[in-house]
Amino acid sequence: MASSVASKTFLAAPRTDGSLGSLLPDLRRQLPSPNVQILIRSRTPKKLQVKAAGSAFGTYFRVTTFGESHGGGVGCIIDGCPPRIPLSEADMQVDLDRRRPGQSRITTPRKETDTCKIYSGVSEGVTTGTPIHVFVPNTDQRGHDYSEMSVAYRPSHADATYDMKYGVRSVQGGGRSSARETIGRVAPGAVAKKILKQFAGTEILAYVSQAHNVVLPEDVVDHEMLTLDQVESNIVRCPDPEYAEKMIAAIDAVRVRGDSVGGVVTCIVRNCPRGLGSPVFDKLEAELAKAMMSLPATKGFEVGSGFAGTFLTGSEHNDEFYTDEFGNIRTRTNRSGGIQGGISNGEIINMRIAFKPTSTIGVKNRIQ
Amino acid sequence: MASSVASKTFLAAPRTDGSLGSLLPDLRRQLPSPNVQILIRSRTPKKLQVKAAGSAFGTYFRVTTFGESHGGGVGCIIDGCPPRIPLSEADMQVDLDRRRPGQSRITTPRKETDTCKIYSGVSEGVTTGTPIHVFVPNTDQRGHDYSEMSVAYRPSHADATYDMKYGVRSVQGGGRSSARETIGRVAPGAVAKKILKQFAGTEILAYVSQAHNVVLPEDVVDHEMLTLDQVESNIVRCPDPEYAEKMIAAIDAVRVRGDSVGGVVTCIVRNCPRGLGSPVFDKLEAELAKAMMSLPATKGFEVGSGFAGTFLTGSEHNDEFYTDEFGNIRTRTNRSGGIQGGISNGEIINMRIAFKPTSTIGVKNRIQ
Amino acid sequence: MASSVASKTFLAAPRTDGSLGSLLPDLRRQLPSPNVQILIRSRTPKKLQVKAAGSAFGTYFRVTTFGESHGGGVGCIIDGCPPRIPLSEADMQVDLDRRRPGQSRITTPRKETDTCKIYSGVSEGVTTGTPIHVFVPNTDQRGHDYSEMSVAYRPSHADATYDMKYGVRSVQGGGRSSARETIGRVAPGAVAKKILKQFAGTEILAYVSQAHNVVLPEDVVDHEMLTLDQVESNIVRCPDPEYAEKMIAAIDAVRVRGDSVGGVVTCIVRNCPRGLGSPVFDKLEAELAKAMMSLPATKGFEVGSGFAGTFLTGSEHNDEFYTDEFGNIRTRTNRSGGIQGGISNGEIINMRIAFKPTSTIGVKNRIQ
Amino acid sequence: MASSVASKTFLAAPRTDGSLGSLLPDLRRQLPSPNVQILIRSRTPKKLQVKAAGSAFGTYFRVTTFGESHGGGVGCIIDGCPPRIPLSEADMQVDLDRRRPGQSRITTPRKETDTCKIYSGVSEGVTTGTPIHVFVPNTDQRGHDYSEMSVAYRPSHADATYDMKYGVRSVQGGGRSSARETIGRVAPGAVAKKILKQFAGTEILAYVSQAHNVVLPEDVVDHEMLTLDQVESNIVRCPDPEYAEKMIAAIDAVRVRGDSVGGVVTCIVRNCPRGLGSPVFDKLEAELAKAMMSLPATKGFEVGSGFAGTFLTGSEHNDEFYTDEFGNIRTRTNRSGGIQGGISNGEIINMRIAFKPTSTIGVKNRIQ
Repeated sequence: MASSVASKTFLAAPRTDGSLGSLLPDLRRQLPSPNVQILIRSRTPKKLQVKAAGSAFGTYFRVTTFGESHGGGVGCIIDGCPPRIPLSEADMQVDLDRRRPGQSRITTPRKETDTCKIYSGVSEGVTTGTPIHVFVPNTDQRGHDYSEMSVAYRPSHADATYDMKYGVRSVQGGGRSSARETIGRVAPGAVAKKILKQFAGTEILAYVSQAHNVVLPEDVVDHEMLTLDQVESNIVRCPDPEYAEKMIAAIDAVRVRGDSVGGVVTCIVRNCPRGLGSPVFDKLEAELAKAMMSLPATKGFEVGSGFAGTFLTGSEHNDEFYTDEFGNIRTRTNRSGGIQGGISNGEIINMRIAFKPTSTIGVKNRIQ
Repeated sequence: MASSVASKTFLAAPRTDGSLGSLLPDLRRQLPSPNVQILIRSRTPKKLQVKAAGSAFGTYFRVTTFGESHGGGVGCIIDGCPPRIPLSEADMQVDLDRRRPGQSRITTPRKETDTCKIYSGVSEGVTTGTPIHVFVPNTDQRGHDYSEMSVAYRPSHADATYDMKYGVRSVQGGGRSSARETIGRVAPGAVAKKILKQFAGTEILAYVSQAHNVVLPEDVVDHEMLTLDQVESNIVRCPDPEYAEKMIAAIDAVRVRGDSVGGVVTCIVRNCPRGLGSPVFDKLEAELAKAMMSLPATKGFEVGSGFAGTFLTGSEHNDEFYTDEFGNIRTRTNRSGGIQGGISNGEIINMRIAFKPTSTIGVKNRIQ
Repeated sequence: MASSVASKTFLAAPRTDGSLGSLLPDLRRQLPSPNVQILIRSRTPKKLQVKAAGSAFGTYFRVTTFGESHGGGVGCIIDGCPPRIPLSEADMQVDLDRRRPGQSRITTPRKETDTCKIYSGVSEGVTTGTPIHVFVPNTDQRGHDYSEMSVAYRPSHADATYDMKYGVRSVQGGGRSSARETIGRVAPGAVAKKILKQFAGTEILAYVSQAHNVVLPEDVVDHEMLTLDQVESNIVRCPDPEYAEKMIAAIDAVRVRGDSVGGVVTCIVRNCPRGLGSPVFDKLEAELAKAMMSLPATKGFEVGSGFAGTFLTGSEHNDEFYTDEFGNIRTRTNRSGGIQGGISNGEIINMRIAFKPTSTIGVKNRIQ
Repeated sequence: MASSVASKTFLAAPRTDGSLGSLLPDLRRQLPSPNVQILIRSRTPKKLQVKAAGSAFGTYFRVTTFGESHGGGVGCIIDGCPPRIPLSEADMQVDLDRRRPGQSRITTPRKETDTCKIYSGVSEGVTTGTPIHVFVPNTDQRGHDYSEMSVAYRPSHADATYDMKYGVRSVQGGGRSSARETIGRVAPGAVAKKILKQFAGTEILAYVSQAHNVVLPEDVVDHEMLTLDQVESNIVRCPDPEYAEKMIAAIDAVRVRGDSVGGVVTCIVRNCPRGLGSPVFDKLEAELAKAMMSLPATKGFEVGSGFAGTFLTGSEHNDEFYTDEFGNIRTRTNRSGGIQGGISNGEIINMRIAFKPTSTIGVKNRIQ
């Protein structure tokens, strides 16, 4: 900003140091004037910093989440849910139970019941169109388990970067970086699935397609026929029994050593309404990528032919159009993964999400 | 989905009717072809409707509210609160107590304790930078008081329009249109005030400047010297004792008849940081206008010289600049109301908000 | 922030100074340890400041504007316009011609042709659903008229606050604070009006209801019957010929002295679709208030009974419902101004916007 | 508008069918009343549809783009650019020249000069803090090249889905789905890079790491030492000369057949400021994933160890912390890819983006 000269005929612009929090300009130099004397006092303001909101997703069906592994609880507000949709806690509890830690020996041993309750937005069993608040209290407070970690940054955890950004470590349980915050996503996800199912017959399923070095080959699972029961038929949630056994064995072998593994989750969407996705920045695969990569521990996202498709030529890769016996436009192959030009075309959306191995391990990994 | 003409060499582009929920276009014309017969089946999809989220305010310090007069409770999530700000329930309870209905004979007789609790985002007495969830349970459930209203639209209430928009009436207590939702604004407002006070010495005060036909003249209250104690010195919250008496009398006279009154609230901001407001659409007075006019029962907003200033000429209205003894830019008058070009200039921001008389009255007002 | 001791077994947490632009933590103190020595170097990073975007309005039909009184031109991007709406430059040029300065002796003497051109988003006379770019070049470059102002802040202009916020004065012509930026609003406004007219029969009209101290009484103009031709019938755009004459005379009397006047614009919306507005923060009157108060020189906004309604009691103010001969829900009076509970009810929306007198005047107003 | 039953004592609540564009509810039931007859007229309103805005990215530094392969031109508005940054067309032209088609035999043969011009937001060589409009006119209008495509949907192109969503095909050149829209991203990208470079020393580089089946091994390029000159040293933009030769040969072999190839681009960020990214939804890798996956033809995104890291155990994958000789926190390995807990930690950000083979090919690929 300009240094100013106060004079009888006009006012000049004072300088500020240009900082966001600078509330009062300080005058850097004195401009001589026969008419007026300048009395200059500068003050150093306290800086008001903004660390940015980042806990809301969506525009029309907007979800805002809150909650850490410690503190009163975890939950969300759903803003923009259509009215008159039948909804109760039971609709969400099913998926919250599937998410819960401590379900089997191959998952985190934390013990939570994760029972949700709806506090607003539902009246006489149907949504009112007003914001829906869902809350899940924290019951397992494990502060004492993290004693040594109070000093050291745990490798590949969020401790260091949370400290850099916020100046606060929230050591216990990983705070907001803990997977516990996903409760606030699973609950509204159940609501969204219900709406899509009711209005468009859409089905969304996910399963484990890789655990450690056990990889489920691409042709084993038929995405047209996959059911939730097949996914839920074993503790590793792989629809193929043979590969499920191998995955459990691989996880066990590593777990007993106090180590952890990573893997890949495949997620499909059947009967997706056509026309979803808004080019250019809000293309459907872009929004899906953002949602998936915002989950804890994710390191990669693919849709359709993904990275494998980069080895093909155009003539090998293109999906031919044809019209089926009902007069619908279909594609013979589906390397597009149900999305073309950023917009859904009605074919199965097929995504794969890479999860790195869990950073919290028993092995002494922090010694220099 | 499109019905289309399939031919040997090409696919025709089906037409859609462009509707958001319409999954099937209808064929506007039939393309003759010796090769192919058109099999057309149209399906009427169920429409997935969006009623629009509208319960969030702010970009950097974003507040999302939930809750109706009935249901489990009312509250908010604050996303983007700077970290390491000392915060506890007490900071917010002070203002929630000031908001509470049933404080005196001149307000709504509803009885609520409005005790808030923080469920996330605060650790060891300071904010963590993660979302803060504040919740106030509903204790006074008055369903039975609205029996007759279950059928009739109450004049000037939100019943009719909520029904038009959502198809749901949420009769009891006015639902989301009830003033109870303002709890979710007052709590984060207390947090914001604390931050602004700490970092910039900003003070925000409001008082009643008109009740029914009793108008407090402009020169009676000195905005440079006004204190919260002066505002809180009587049940009508007018800082001048003489006019406060007149206002209480005017309200009483109408109240005993089962009728209601409107009025005007004056709100000032002292020591506002300079430079707030982002032209052109997010000018400071525009954001303030939106916030104020989103309160229940508001019908008008003024800043600075307001509607009265429209009678002046430019030379009568302009605020002269000068430099004070500390070297700060000041204005001799303040018809701008502390905002010029949409940006705060450090002078007192002076707003007036018009409230229509409460629509819920005892008088039989609904018979044709 | 945690300070920690670096030792063989763990890592110290460095301190940051918490500033937004601080890129490297600096260690404030050295922690003694027999095992490790800490070498500390701090660096002062350059601060990256954000002044905030503020030039976009809307969520579904989003308008982003650009342009100052000087520079290449002014315009906008419309994102989210529905496809297959017939659109051409002519649709927008009509309103741009009505906005243009220099139309008569009672307006700003600036000479611009304000010819717009569409550069994207329209193909074969209809919108494509992709972003529409509209551009109006600047032809009247008046830099030399503002020579004296290069030093002084013009009272009640945006010079001082733009300098405080941006550190840049953009003297010539007021830059972004000039009324010229409204071109970027008028063009998309014409598109929006066309869509609303076509789909809902909505009509939007505005007229001058007060100029200086000449006030058009409330009952003179019949909002049910008002037409654009009546508004355009004289240079002051007041539908009543008698009051128009008075207004022109009042403006002339002040103008010849080199001074300026303020006034009030009344804007009505007929056949507004019911159900617009999203409680609680995006209530229709709140959005309208924000839009209006973001215009240059505005100082007040009213809807329906406005500030006058604050003098009434509830029984005097409430709008009775009844059903008309077509079976539609109507209100006998319309103090609500077409909006109840933040949502449109189909009655005429009636707004009044207060404009302060123009700050740029010929009178020597800047001498202390 | 509602049809309703009017009676002497009350108004019944009409039902709506809940649709967004539905302006008239239909009466589901008739209420008998001795007093009143029901006159019911229903009207079918025209539906006002919204296709959703999707052409803006960013909150603080917000970019809105426009433009198709045909029409007047392509460009963007940058809203929120900090003021007083030196900026001219030259800053952006460098990257626009690198983006341009027709640079060599291995790219699209389209001929455009892509010369940009700044129309607002810059004054006397520095940004003013107001919106910056950048425009690039279209000069190569190739309508006639797509004659056959006017009827058929081109496989794996956006024709079908754009038609489904918008009802408009925008055949020529692919319209908004054409890679030409990326001009509106490259220009503001150059501005952003300049700011980050100036304030934090940040460098952003990208190169081709795979073309068709030629894969550059991971250890060949040293990301600490990579320079732009190395990337620009050959027409395929692979920093290793040997692999560059192989890639060009692979592309040539396929190109002469009228076919196309896909590949992978590796993008790195050096000296990224620490603390970027806002958990949980706006984590840095999530925002990057959304940005990358919104580019045309992308099918996969990885950061750090990506999909390969899923084969490791936690002890093999974790990045050890240590403090370097300057007192900075560093990690010995960088499988995190510079992002932990969704926030940058200052290490090199390493991303890989998969591009499918171009869909527009000479080979006859559309006959059934």
